[in-house]
Amino acid sequence: MTARVLVVDDLAPNVKLLEAKLRAEYFEVITALGGREAIELARTQSPDIILLDVMMPGIDGFETCKLLKEDPLTRHIPVVMVTALDQRSDRIAGLEAGADDFLTKPVQDLALFARVRNLSRLKQMTDELRHRHAQGAQLGAIETPKIEDVEREIGEVIIISDRPVIEGLENDSESLLSGINFSYQNDSRELLDRIRTDLPDMIMVDLGLESYDPLRLCSAIRSAEGSRLLPLLAIADQEDTRRLVKALDIGVNDYLMRPIDVQEMAARVRTQLRRKWYVEHLRDSLSQSLELAVLDGLTGIYNRRFLQSQLPRLLTKAVKRELPLSVMILDVDFFKAVNDTYGHDVGDAVLREIGHMLHFSLRGMDLACRYGGEEFVVVLPETPREGSEVIAERLRKEIAGLQIDAGNGQSFSVTVSIGMAFFDGTSREETPASLLKRADEALYRAKEGGRNRVILEAA
Amino acid sequence: MTARVLVVDDLAPNVKLLEAKLRAEYFEVITALGGREAIELARTQSPDIILLDVMMPGIDGFETCKLLKEDPLTRHIPVVMVTALDQRSDRIAGLEAGADDFLTKPVQDLALFARVRNLSRLKQMTDELRHRHAQGAQLGAIETPKIEDVEREIGEVIIISDRPVIEGLENDSESLLSGINFSYQNDSRELLDRIRTDLPDMIMVDLGLESYDPLRLCSAIRSAEGSRLLPLLAIADQEDTRRLVKALDIGVNDYLMRPIDVQEMAARVRTQLRRKWYVEHLRDSLSQSLELAVLDGLTGIYNRRFLQSQLPRLLTKAVKRELPLSVMILDVDFFKAVNDTYGHDVGDAVLREIGHMLHFSLRGMDLACRYGGEEFVVVLPETPREGSEVIAERLRKEIAGLQIDAGNGQSFSVTVSIGMAFFDGTSREETPASLLKRADEALYRAKEGGRNRVILEAA
Repeated sequence: MTARVLVVDDLAPNVKLLEAKLRAEYFEVITALGGREAIELARTQSPDIILLDVMMPGIDGFETCKLLKEDPLTRHIPVVMVTALDQRSDRIAGLEAGADDFLTKPVQDLALFARVRNLSRLKQMTDELRHRHAQGAQLGAIETPKIEDVEREIGEVIIISDRPVIEGLENDSESLLSGINFSYQNDSRELLDRIRTDLPDMIMVDLGLESYDPLRLCSAIRSAEGSRLLPLLAIADQEDTRRLVKALDIGVNDYLMRPIDVQEMAARVRTQLRRKWYVEHLRDSLSQSLELAVLDGLTGIYNRRFLQSQLPRLLTKAVKRELPLSVMILDVDFFKAVNDTYGHDVGDAVLREIGHMLHFSLRGMDLACRYGGEEFVVVLPETPREGSEVIAERLRKEIAGLQIDAGNGQSFSVTVSIGMAFFDGTSREETPASLLKRADEALYRAKEGGRNRVILEAA
Repeated sequence: MTARVLVVDDLAPNVKLLEAKLRAEYFEVITALGGREAIELARTQSPDIILLDVMMPGIDGFETCKLLKEDPLTRHIPVVMVTALDQRSDRIAGLEAGADDFLTKPVQDLALFARVRNLSRLKQMTDELRHRHAQGAQLGAIETPKIEDVEREIGEVIIISDRPVIEGLENDSESLLSGINFSYQNDSRELLDRIRTDLPDMIMVDLGLESYDPLRLCSAIRSAEGSRLLPLLAIADQEDTRRLVKALDIGVNDYLMRPIDVQEMAARVRTQLRRKWYVEHLRDSLSQSLELAVLDGLTGIYNRRFLQSQLPRLLTKAVKRELPLSVMILDVDFFKAVNDTYGHDVGDAVLREIGHMLHFSLRGMDLACRYGGEEFVVVLPETPREGSEVIAERLRKEIAGLQIDAGNGQSFSVTVSIGMAFFDGTSREETPASLLKRADEALYRAKEGGRNRVILEAA
């Protein structure tokens, strides 16, 4: 794979050196000689990854990283800090500024390419999601996330290891690791079973694991659809770089070297958790905004579009499993008079109250939607004829019992007429349209018959 | 990277051999001994790629591939056909069945891993998009695409080469290549400039290119954000496999070996075009469904949610550039009487006609939305005070001139009252809420003053 790499260093020879290495491997390179320029390029040129020198005049690498990670336009871009000395204090400061990784000068080719490939691949996997989300936000269909919307209180981390990573980690109460629940698991098969249904926020795999091939485990986690983007952090011994390179190639997100520094571990784990939560937030808010398209703006229950997509499915399922299904149309009686007497706002309140009542009064499998104007449709799957009639009668009574606030200190009530069609599960000729048509005919008879009643079509 | 590979062959030793090779490189492997089983596993186990033997009893590889590519649940999964002999007829049949690539037995490791990595990476890049789309389709917010929705009539293909690929290709009228417009470009820099603004459907790069490093060109195309997923097909000479492997590693989607067989070329180009159009279709329909969330269901113009997201932006821009901005609220006069006299359907038609008129009568930079009930809001950016008044007056007259069908063969007309607030671009205290409030006050005076008029707040 290739990627667009932004190289930032105040010394031109350093920039040239990294640029040459990267270009020889056919990466695209853009360069900046300082923090401000780097931020500007990151905003306008969409690099896939940023290699950022720590020691620079003006704003240094830490400050640049912090600014990049605070900006919604750039915070998804992985940042690798390049430090002159492999100093613990630098690493901690960098991780606290939000850096995703480190390279030590002189930069080793293998480490460089592995990091660049790995981090840019992860970014590219979520680019599409980020673009759709940005589009939704641009339209106002999605709210732009604030950092605090994305963060969660507790992170669940599973450690796969035969030996303790840090003594007493499970009971650690140091503030560094607060809010992260660590648990050990040394049965890899049990873990693979578990993550099918119950994903933690992150998994740490000890590459010194003896009971199971740790690389195989990483590959299994990474290639399962549910855990494809799950943060995976390797724990390696100093002498085990070959296995580590393979682990990064498989798609491990990050690693820690033994002996493990608790501060570095805390920072790296937090970086991964932030990234995961960010992606989940994008996904969830995109889903919510898709759902807006099938929700009725006034009542908050589903709209006609949703009914049109779901009724055919429910009917197909009923035919396939030979189970009954009823469809009822509820129409508010004398709704025009409500609007005329109390005004449109109170009329809207009537519709909202009914929507609310339907939402809470029906079973999870039932479907209630606002069909338009003062009409609602309810679909009852897997419900026998008598049961459907009982439910319809109950809804009619519950609606008649609603006390609507007239706005002048008074309250009033409304009634509905309900027409219902029943499908016994046997005919193959039934269609969504035929069901709705028969329910509508029954509704007409309910209205003709004096309103405030349920008419179920004749068997 | 890793991937979940489905290996399909009726001979267990063949399955074992491929499985061992792939597992040694830490790919996850699932296996099937026949076409039916393969289809079932593809539907339930979501593999990233399928290695499919051609010669099998029951349904053979071609038929299996065809069925996989016809099924909406599996058609995005790349299929590599494994053939015993490198026969042209097999390749053509496979490509026509929709196969993405071929491997010849005995399978070479290098070719195997390159293909698996390359094809599964491309799939994984669009998985997120596919999942969001599927979710939207499940909700009924997006229609499930039919093959014919995705296909287009013309594919634009640019060939980067110093020499002809196939003689007379530009003027080819063979049915094999019909619907594909090929054009040559031998200036690589010109191409890179062009694709920033005007993307073709596909680019073919001759790896024998002498005027520019062809691998560098592939990398530049692949790492630019706009062309990241653009189909890229390499043209290689038989002796140039090393360069080809590198090209595949960079992210070239497919390749053709010289001398080029026109039938194979047509099939490979079509496979790539189909994949591109499929992804674009997913993206477009996802965008459309996001847009549904900010459109008013009745009138089809923007809704209040959209106004709430855009008005702050427009105001910020006006402040920054010191340009004026006006906001008007339009309210239909005696709307209740319309509903009472002609019924709700005709009332709805009034709102639709007004929405339609606003949509077509305003400039592209203006914003019109249904604010709720019979109220509309129009925002006019960069418009001086007098100009805004002229536009408001014009809208008032145009609405008064609309002939609304009363449904009984008669027609009638309605009027609107308009209240308008003006921001001159200089104050920093102005807010969206203060603008709307002042427009609402002006509207109140328009109503009090006798309706059917425009009131612009005092300067």
